[in-house]
Amino acid sequence: MTKEDTKVTPWEVKGKVNYNKIIKEFGIKPIKNLPDVFNENLLFRRKIVFAHRDIQRILEVIKSKKAFVMMTGLMPSGKFHIGHILLVRQMIFYQELGAKIYIAIADLEAYNARKKSLKELKEIAINEYILNYAALGLDLNKCDLYFQSARSNNAEKSNAYYRLASNFSRYVTFNEFKAIYGKDISPEKMNASLLQAADMAHAQLPEFEGGPIPVLIPVGIDQDPHLRLARDIVNRYKDNKMIQLSSTYHLFLPGLKDGKMSSSDVNSYIALTDSPEEVKNKINKYAFSGGRNTIEEHRKYGGDPDVDVSFLYLKYLFEPDDKKLEQIKKDYQSGKLLSKELKKILIDKINVFLKEHQKKKEEAKKQLEKFLLKDDTKHL
Amino acid sequence: MTKEDTKVTPWEVKGKVNYNKIIKEFGIKPIKNLPDVFNENLLFRRKIVFAHRDIQRILEVIKSKKAFVMMTGLMPSGKFHIGHILLVRQMIFYQELGAKIYIAIADLEAYNARKKSLKELKEIAINEYILNYAALGLDLNKCDLYFQSARSNNAEKSNAYYRLASNFSRYVTFNEFKAIYGKDISPEKMNASLLQAADMAHAQLPEFEGGPIPVLIPVGIDQDPHLRLARDIVNRYKDNKMIQLSSTYHLFLPGLKDGKMSSSDVNSYIALTDSPEEVKNKINKYAFSGGRNTIEEHRKYGGDPDVDVSFLYLKYLFEPDDKKLEQIKKDYQSGKLLSKELKKILIDKINVFLKEHQKKKEEAKKQLEKFLLKDDTKHL
Repeated sequence: MTKEDTKVTPWEVKGKVNYNKIIKEFGIKPIKNLPDVFNENLLFRRKIVFAHRDIQRILEVIKSKKAFVMMTGLMPSGKFHIGHILLVRQMIFYQELGAKIYIAIADLEAYNARKKSLKELKEIAINEYILNYAALGLDLNKCDLYFQSARSNNAEKSNAYYRLASNFSRYVTFNEFKAIYGKDISPEKMNASLLQAADMAHAQLPEFEGGPIPVLIPVGIDQDPHLRLARDIVNRYKDNKMIQLSSTYHLFLPGLKDGKMSSSDVNSYIALTDSPEEVKNKINKYAFSGGRNTIEEHRKYGGDPDVDVSFLYLKYLFEPDDKKLEQIKKDYQSGKLLSKELKKILIDKINVFLKEHQKKKEEAKKQLEKFLLKDDTKHL
Repeated sequence: MTKEDTKVTPWEVKGKVNYNKIIKEFGIKPIKNLPDVFNENLLFRRKIVFAHRDIQRILEVIKSKKAFVMMTGLMPSGKFHIGHILLVRQMIFYQELGAKIYIAIADLEAYNARKKSLKELKEIAINEYILNYAALGLDLNKCDLYFQSARSNNAEKSNAYYRLASNFSRYVTFNEFKAIYGKDISPEKMNASLLQAADMAHAQLPEFEGGPIPVLIPVGIDQDPHLRLARDIVNRYKDNKMIQLSSTYHLFLPGLKDGKMSSSDVNSYIALTDSPEEVKNKINKYAFSGGRNTIEEHRKYGGDPDVDVSFLYLKYLFEPDDKKLEQIKKDYQSGKLLSKELKKILIDKINVFLKEHQKKKEEAKKQLEKFLLKDDTKHL
């Protein structure tokens, strides 16, 4: 365990993240007193979704069964991995609560950042991301899914969306961009940032949901600078009435080696296409352990589940039963459960999950094909 | 006559402009050896359109009767005045030579710069600018006229246009923006600049003219920095094949008081809605004169037509007969023609023109109404 300085930005996560400190620094609020329906979901019950801005507005519309939008974006880069599941589970959760799900495929941002062609990015988005969303249980037919490069097959909608992104440029200063991007600020990053703010806000235009509507944007805590910027812009923009954006923040699912999952390092994550053998090898070889250096020490002093990647994966994703999770935790802390045994539990859980997922994916392929043949998805 | 330093940027014209020096500094080429059809037009014959980049490409397609596009933009601000006629005459000239005319109404740029609502800007664009274009003889039905805020009523076209503007952000650096905008660079100016580059280039996308096509952009010399930027971007952009942009540069029609016409000073221009009395008063009171301080001196030494705004208006716009213009020049230089008499010639010419124009405008109103009711203009 290293004791570096913490750094959390949209581009870097460094050191052991002190979430209480971040809540204070970012000016976000800890999540408290959620309705029962939220606590049935392990992400809320276990405080993996741990903080928010203006969630009250969303809780109210859920209570009164009024319409709301949940908006999210995806960057089509690299393989779909278990880290992505965290957000998909939230999307499904809100979809079941009646939210219309807006999904922005940030291909224009990726085009500028990743130097791939829009065609390649489209392939990745559809076949890696959207297919897995569907396989995980998201109902695509209840989503407004779009590429930034082609907002709609309805010209009025497309014009309104891009117009908003352009108009937003009037309500933000260079210094505000610099505060987010530092000295690496560039024309393409500014452009991406304005598009992203439009992604978050445009559901409230007359051409989309007809007018102001509560919008919830669940993100990883590292994405808050983008939310702050979008909220500042929405606050200043007066040409259309808009309700301030709501957001929730979830903890990181750490990479296997701790730190962030990186698409450039296949051993930093479990991909949803990994074979049982790959899963086993990756976890045994790379999963950062909170255990002791020797079995003797471990038996004597116990392990630290809070920094143990295998335990965290069980907690965040793969062990829904609180009692079982608690038992694993106790056994690990007491030294009864060894690192290798903990890893074995996770490997088995993931491999059962992935086997099932592969099946669902075949089913989802057919759904996706149908979805893409619909009249109102011909721009995808 | 003042002897200040010359300064020519898109935002400032200062001092007596030395066009030969500018040709050298800007790296543009003097226009030479034009086909006869050009020289039948006084703007070319009198070298009011005096320089170019890559005009050869346009001359070739005109010669071989191939398709080409003439692109221009308008900023919906203030009243339509005689300074605007220079460009409209070029538009009509190229339209008659077979060019498809693209007209970008830069309402998103104006929204950011002028702090007016898009609705107000639309009113001004249609009722001040487009109506006068039609009255001056432009055939709107052979134009692709659009607002930046709503490129098309065809979603594929709209998406393609805005996508291009966004993608262009990858091919330009901050320093290049600074070279144009100086330290006043701002997010909204960068945004406007990218849209403007897309305005110039997007005709060549598959969704518009089907692919690469020569595009001519006639501008006042002050606009060359925008052309340079757009040409640099087109040169770097590889996702669609594009032919480098061609441009021509025309001299300024000076404001009445010399310097630039300014929409914030009604006495700096003749508006096309000015009454005969207003025309007379403005010219007599404000038109910068190249005459001498006293009649005696004028008779003895003669006037300087090259700096005399009344003479220049005749030369640029209102005296198409070369022989008559030459006679006026000689008489003015010799002292035979007094400033007051020269002004009288201009006043009469403008008032005849404006009377005729008002009639044409009534006719154009009906055309415009019909034009705006067409299926393919419903986004306007």
